Amino acid sequence: MHSQQVAIDRAFHALGDPTRRAILESLSQGPISVSTLAKPLDMTLAAVVQHLQILEESNLIRTEKVGRVRTCQIELKGFALVEKWITDRRLLWERRFDRLGALLTEPEQK
Amino acid sequence: MHSQQVAIDRAFHALGDPTRRAILESLSQGPISVSTLAKPLDMTLAAVVQHLQILEESNLIRTEKVGRVRTCQIELKGFALVEKWITDRRLLWERRFDRLGALLTEPEQK
Repeated sequence: MHSQQVAIDRAFHALGDPTRRAILESLSQGPISVSTLAKPLDMTLAAVVQHLQILEESNLIRTEKVGRVRTCQIELKGFALVEKWITDRRLLWERRFDRLGALLTEPEQK
Repeated sequence: MHSQQVAIDRAFHALGDPTRRAILESLSQGPISVSTLAKPLDMTLAAVVQHLQILEESNLIRTEKVGRVRTCQIELKGFALVEKWITDRRLLWERRFDRLGALLTEPEQK
Protein backbone atom coordinates (compact mmCIF):
# COMPACT_ATOMS: atom_id res chain seq x y z
CA MET A 1 0.00 0.00 0.00
CA HIS A 2 2.75 2.45 0.93
CA SER A 3 4.90 1.59 -2.10
CA GLN A 4 1.76 2.02 -4.24
CA GLN A 5 1.39 5.55 -2.85
CA VAL A 6 5.05 6.30 -3.66
CA ALA A 7 4.51 5.01 -7.22
CA ILE A 8 1.42 7.21 -7.67
CA ASP A 9 3.27 10.26 -6.29
CA ARG A 10 6.17 9.61 -8.69
CA ALA A 11 3.95 9.16 -11.74
CA PHE A 12 1.94 12.34 -11.08
CA HIS A 13 5.11 14.32 -10.39
CA ALA A 14 6.56 13.05 -13.70
CA LEU A 15 3.40 14.00 -15.61
CA GLY A 16 3.33 17.48 -14.04
CA ASP A 17 6.10 18.66 -16.38
CA PRO A 18 5.18 19.78 -19.95
CA THR A 19 8.50 18.57 -21.48
CA ARG A 20 7.97 15.10 -20.05
CA ARG A 21 4.40 15.03 -21.37
CA ALA A 22 5.71 16.09 -24.82
CA ILE A 23 8.20 13.18 -24.68
CA LEU A 24 5.36 10.76 -23.86
CA GLU A 25 3.28 12.19 -26.75
CA SER A 26 6.14 11.46 -29.17
CA LEU A 27 6.72 7.98 -27.75
CA SER A 28 3.07 6.96 -28.00
CA GLN A 29 3.68 6.75 -31.79
CA GLY A 30 6.43 4.16 -31.23
CA PRO A 31 9.93 3.64 -29.73
CA ILE A 32 12.46 6.46 -30.36
CA SER A 33 16.21 6.74 -29.66
CA VAL A 34 17.32 9.23 -27.00
CA SER A 35 19.21 11.37 -29.55
CA THR A 36 16.17 11.58 -31.89
CA LEU A 37 13.93 12.47 -28.94
CA ALA A 38 16.37 15.21 -27.87
CA LYS A 39 16.65 16.88 -31.32
CA PRO A 40 13.41 18.98 -31.30
CA LEU A 41 13.77 19.82 -27.59
CA ASP A 42 15.43 23.13 -26.77
CA MET A 43 17.71 21.77 -24.00
CA THR A 44 20.99 19.96 -23.41
CA LEU A 45 21.20 16.20 -23.87
CA ALA A 46 21.96 15.95 -20.13
CA ALA A 47 18.66 17.70 -19.31
CA VAL A 48 16.76 15.35 -21.64
CA VAL A 49 18.42 12.32 -20.02
CA GLN A 50 17.34 13.61 -16.60
CA HIS A 51 13.71 13.89 -17.79
CA LEU A 52 13.93 10.35 -19.19
CA GLN A 53 15.25 9.06 -15.86
CA ILE A 54 12.28 10.57 -14.03
CA LEU A 55 9.89 9.01 -16.57
CA GLU A 56 11.62 5.62 -16.26
CA GLU A 57 11.56 5.69 -12.43
CA SER A 58 7.80 6.38 -12.68
CA ASN A 59 7.25 3.35 -14.96
CA LEU A 60 5.94 5.64 -17.70
CA ILE A 61 8.74 4.65 -20.08
CA ARG A 62 11.29 1.87 -20.46
CA THR A 63 14.73 2.33 -22.04
CA GLU A 64 17.02 -0.24 -23.59
CA LYS A 65 20.58 0.10 -24.86
CA VAL A 66 21.56 -1.86 -27.95
CA GLY A 67 25.16 -1.22 -28.97
CA ARG A 68 25.68 2.55 -28.63
CA VAL A 69 22.01 3.50 -29.07
CA ARG A 70 19.58 3.85 -26.16
CA THR A 71 15.94 3.56 -27.23
CA CYS A 72 12.89 4.64 -25.21
CA GLN A 73 9.39 3.23 -25.32
CA ILE A 74 6.10 3.63 -23.44
CA GLU A 75 5.68 1.47 -20.31
CA LEU A 76 2.00 0.97 -19.52
CA LYS A 77 2.46 0.24 -15.78
CA GLY A 78 2.74 3.95 -14.84
CA PHE A 79 -0.14 4.90 -17.13
CA ALA A 80 -2.38 2.28 -15.50
CA LEU A 81 -1.65 3.69 -12.01
CA VAL A 82 -2.55 7.26 -12.97
CA GLU A 83 -5.60 6.17 -14.96
CA LYS A 84 -6.86 4.19 -11.94
CA TRP A 85 -6.35 7.06 -9.49
CA ILE A 86 -8.30 9.46 -11.70
CA THR A 87 -11.10 7.00 -12.46
CA ASP A 88 -11.46 5.97 -8.79
CA ARG A 89 -11.88 9.60 -7.68
CA ARG A 90 -14.42 10.24 -10.43
CA LEU A 91 -16.40 7.05 -9.64
CA LEU A 92 -16.51 7.80 -5.89
CA TRP A 93 -17.91 11.23 -6.71
CA GLU A 94 -20.44 9.91 -9.24
CA ARG A 95 -21.60 7.14 -6.88
CA ARG A 96 -22.31 9.78 -4.26
CA PHE A 97 -24.71 11.46 -6.72
CA ASP A 98 -26.33 8.11 -7.52
CA ARG A 99 -27.00 7.58 -3.78
CA LEU A 100 -28.41 11.11 -3.44
CA GLY A 101 -30.62 10.47 -6.49
CA ALA A 102 -31.87 7.18 -4.99
CA LEU A 103 -32.72 8.95 -1.70
CA LEU A 104 -34.67 11.63 -3.55
CA THR A 105 -36.75 9.17 -5.58
CA GLU A 106 -37.47 6.83 -2.61
CA PRO A 107 -41.18 6.72 -1.75
CA GLU A 108 -41.90 8.92 1.25
CA GLN A 109 -42.27 6.98 4.53
CA LYS A 110 -45.60 7.50 6.27
CA MET B 1 -7.04 23.58 -29.59
CA HIS B 2 -4.56 25.93 -27.96
CA SER B 3 -6.84 26.65 -24.99
CA GLN B 4 -7.34 22.87 -24.68
CA GLN B 5 -3.55 22.50 -24.35
CA VAL B 6 -3.47 25.22 -21.67
CA ALA B 7 -6.26 23.43 -19.78
CA ILE B 8 -4.37 20.09 -19.91
CA ASP B 9 -1.14 21.75 -18.75
CA ARG B 10 -3.00 23.37 -15.84
CA ALA B 11 -4.73 20.17 -14.77
CA PHE B 12 -1.52 18.08 -14.82
CA HIS B 13 0.38 20.81 -12.98
CA ALA B 14 -2.36 20.88 -10.33
CA LEU B 15 -2.29 17.08 -9.94
CA GLY B 16 1.52 17.05 -9.64
CA ASP B 17 1.33 18.24 -6.03
CA PRO B 18 0.64 15.67 -3.26
CA THR B 19 -1.30 18.13 -1.05
CA ARG B 20 -3.64 18.96 -3.91
CA ARG B 21 -4.17 15.25 -4.62
CA ALA B 22 -4.92 14.68 -0.91
CA ILE B 23 -7.53 17.48 -1.09
CA LEU B 24 -9.14 15.80 -4.13
CA GLU B 25 -9.15 12.46 -2.28
CA SER B 26 -11.08 14.05 0.61
CA LEU B 27 -13.49 15.83 -1.74
CA SER B 28 -14.31 12.70 -3.73
CA GLN B 29 -16.33 11.61 -0.64
CA GLY B 30 -18.47 14.75 -0.90
CA PRO B 31 -18.40 18.58 -0.62
CA ILE B 32 -16.34 20.01 2.31
CA SER B 33 -15.96 23.56 3.65
CA VAL B 34 -12.55 25.23 3.24
CA SER B 35 -11.97 25.37 7.01
CA THR B 36 -12.76 21.64 7.47
CA LEU B 37 -10.45 20.80 4.55
CA ALA B 38 -7.66 22.88 6.08
CA LYS B 39 -7.86 21.31 9.58
CA PRO B 40 -5.83 18.09 8.96
CA LEU B 41 -3.34 19.88 6.66
CA ASP B 42 -0.13 21.08 8.27
CA MET B 43 -0.13 24.55 6.65
CA THR B 44 -1.59 28.03 6.96
CA LEU B 45 -5.13 28.72 5.76
CA ALA B 46 -3.60 31.07 3.15
CA ALA B 47 -1.54 28.19 1.73
CA VAL B 48 -4.62 25.95 1.59
CA VAL B 49 -6.59 28.67 -0.19
CA GLN B 50 -3.77 28.99 -2.76
CA HIS B 51 -3.91 25.22 -3.46
CA LEU B 52 -7.70 25.46 -3.81
CA GLN B 53 -7.34 28.33 -6.29
CA ILE B 54 -4.99 26.23 -8.45
CA LEU B 55 -7.45 23.30 -8.31
CA GLU B 56 -10.36 25.59 -9.21
CA GLU B 57 -8.49 27.20 -12.14
CA SER B 58 -7.81 23.66 -13.43
CA ASN B 59 -11.53 22.76 -13.27
CA LEU B 60 -10.75 19.97 -10.80
CA ILE B 61 -12.89 21.58 -8.09
CA ARG B 62 -15.63 24.15 -7.82
CA THR B 63 -16.13 26.42 -4.78
CA GLU B 64 -19.24 28.24 -3.65
CA LYS B 65 -19.71 30.75 -0.86
CA VAL B 66 -22.95 30.63 1.11
CA GLY B 67 -23.04 33.22 3.87
CA ARG B 68 -19.61 33.11 5.52
CA VAL B 69 -18.80 29.52 4.54
CA ARG B 70 -17.00 28.61 1.31
CA THR B 71 -17.59 25.00 0.29
CA CYS B 72 -15.52 22.97 -2.22
CA GLN B 73 -16.65 20.13 -4.42
CA ILE B 74 -15.23 17.98 -7.22
CA GLU B 75 -15.64 19.38 -10.76
CA LEU B 76 -15.52 16.58 -13.32
CA LYS B 77 -14.40 18.77 -16.28
CA GLY B 78 -10.72 18.73 -15.26
CA PHE B 79 -10.84 15.01 -14.44
CA ALA B 80 -12.24 14.24 -17.90
CA LEU B 81 -9.39 16.16 -19.60
CA VAL B 82 -6.66 14.27 -17.73
CA GLU B 83 -8.41 10.93 -18.13
CA LYS B 84 -8.67 11.50 -21.91
CA TRP B 85 -5.01 12.50 -22.28
CA ILE B 86 -3.83 9.36 -20.46
CA THR B 87 -6.23 7.03 -22.29
CA ASP B 88 -5.37 8.52 -25.72
CA ARG B 89 -1.62 7.94 -25.17
CA ARG B 90 -2.24 4.38 -24.02
CA LEU B 91 -4.58 3.61 -26.95
CA LEU B 92 -2.14 5.01 -29.54
CA TRP B 93 0.56 2.77 -28.08
CA GLU B 94 -1.69 -0.30 -27.92
CA ARG B 95 -2.94 0.24 -31.51
CA ARG B 96 0.67 0.28 -32.69
CA PHE B 97 1.09 -3.22 -31.24
CA ASP B 98 -2.13 -4.37 -32.90
CA ARG B 99 -0.80 -3.17 -36.30
CA LEU B 100 2.53 -4.94 -35.69
CA GLY B 101 0.65 -8.11 -34.75
CA ALA B 102 -1.45 -7.89 -37.92
CA LEU B 103 1.71 -7.50 -40.04
CA LEU B 104 3.32 -10.53 -38.41
CA THR B 105 0.30 -12.79 -39.00
CA GLU B 106 -0.26 -11.64 -42.63
CA PRO B 107 0.33 -14.43 -45.15
CA GLU B 108 3.76 -14.06 -46.78
CA GLN B 109 3.69 -12.50 -50.28
CA LYS B 110 5.29 -14.70 -53.00
